[in-house]
Amino acid sequence: MRYEELTIEGRNAVIEAFRAGKTIDKLFILKDCQDGPIRTIIKEAKKTDAILNFVTKERLDQLSETGKHQGVVAYSAAYQYAEVEDLLRVAEEKGEPPFLILLDNVEDPHNLGAIIRTANLAGAHGVIIPKRRAAGLTAAAAKASAGAIYYTPVAKVTNLAKTIEELKEKGLWFVCADMDGDSMYQLNLTGAIGLVIGNEGDGVSRLVKEKCDMVASIPMKGEIGSLNASVAAGVLAYEIVRQRM
Amino acid sequence: MRYEELTIEGRNAVIEAFRAGKTIDKLFILKDCQDGPIRTIIKEAKKTDAILNFVTKERLDQLSETGKHQGVVAYSAAYQYAEVEDLLRVAEEKGEPPFLILLDNVEDPHNLGAIIRTANLAGAHGVIIPKRRAAGLTAAAAKASAGAIYYTPVAKVTNLAKTIEELKEKGLWFVCADMDGDSMYQLNLTGAIGLVIGNEGDGVSRLVKEKCDMVASIPMKGEIGSLNASVAAGVLAYEIVRQRM
Repeated sequence: MRYEELTIEGRNAVIEAFRAGKTIDKLFILKDCQDGPIRTIIKEAKKTDAILNFVTKERLDQLSETGKHQGVVAYSAAYQYAEVEDLLRVAEEKGEPPFLILLDNVEDPHNLGAIIRTANLAGAHGVIIPKRRAAGLTAAAAKASAGAIYYTPVAKVTNLAKTIEELKEKGLWFVCADMDGDSMYQLNLTGAIGLVIGNEGDGVSRLVKEKCDMVASIPMKGEIGSLNASVAAGVLAYEIVRQRM
Repeated sequence: MRYEELTIEGRNAVIEAFRAGKTIDKLFILKDCQDGPIRTIIKEAKKTDAILNFVTKERLDQLSETGKHQGVVAYSAAYQYAEVEDLLRVAEEKGEPPFLILLDNVEDPHNLGAIIRTANLAGAHGVIIPKRRAAGLTAAAAKASAGAIYYTPVAKVTNLAKTIEELKEKGLWFVCADMDGDSMYQLNLTGAIGLVIGNEGDGVSRLVKEKCDMVASIPMKGEIGSLNASVAAGVLAYEIVRQRM
């Protein structure tokens, strides 16, 4: 397991972190700020060992990685990446066929966060990202996930194509999103499945695409090239949800 | 009709603007930058009356509204908001029942841009936004739309609830997204339809919700509260696409 430090910014993100039982080491709050959400955060912090610091706006701006701290920045003890086995265990414990979302070099931390958020709500058991050339769990990703990173495990792997091979041996089918695929409405997306979403500009890499059992396309009527990566992930994840129902 | 100035930033956004026949007044390009996309932009610019300026990175950073100019910033002549009637005319010309997306105070320009992008690809005939308390067509929204604002008309109205009433008289049905609604898979979303997406934090306002014929919910399995607004718009828009097929 790997540990990384995590800065959590924004009121909702910090409240969700407390609610999820996340260990907060230090909390920086805007001096003289007394509204409801801030009072909730202070109350939650006092139940824990978190060290409270009331600071100026300038200090918060310095600490903030996203520039959108909304008067509160928290340092969490550590964010723990999961192992791929942990994701499969979540599915097993729920008695559901595994449903994983794999990101083939998604670069924008906002997209990563939004996809973790979607994974949580669509009932996926986890997200797998590659170690290199991809957004990791930065403060921006954590904020965009709206708290989902405290519930939905994220595993980091060295080689996505190899991970797909190993998971295929455990009975998962893989579908990647690409424009030259079959309409997602015509594919059978039930059962143990891994959904692969490609890079924002280049889509799914050739090596990863070759490992997939199916290539799904989202029907497109317009003039432009492609959907936003997190929107495409949402549309495909919910087609899987619909077919599983 | 209202006219507003528009800064277009980023390589893809500028290339799409030229391809869509948009009038570019001025173009600022990073000095000594010679890669493929930049050469394409210069070639396109030379076919038009656009004034080319080769500038330093510092100058581009100053001009940039999003901070992500990728070496190119363009000033377009003007962006033209459409009227609601224009949107209906698009549907009529295509011989399709109208499919509009209405945004009830979506505040984040990235969400607005991503939704216009989704509207274009899902075959919606246009997007309606309110004049107040909502993101407008800023450079950030234009960039997030990936060129879709040059194809999909956006109308700005004073009172969204009143616009819904007027459109109902013309035969449109309205569905808004809210967690307490019926599952979207169980609703009939075919025919002339307006899809209403609420504010990122507060959802759809009471007044607008009361005007809607149906309230649709996206099935949610996870621990957190809601999907990202542009992801929710994508999931619902594609359920409409599926039912229309």
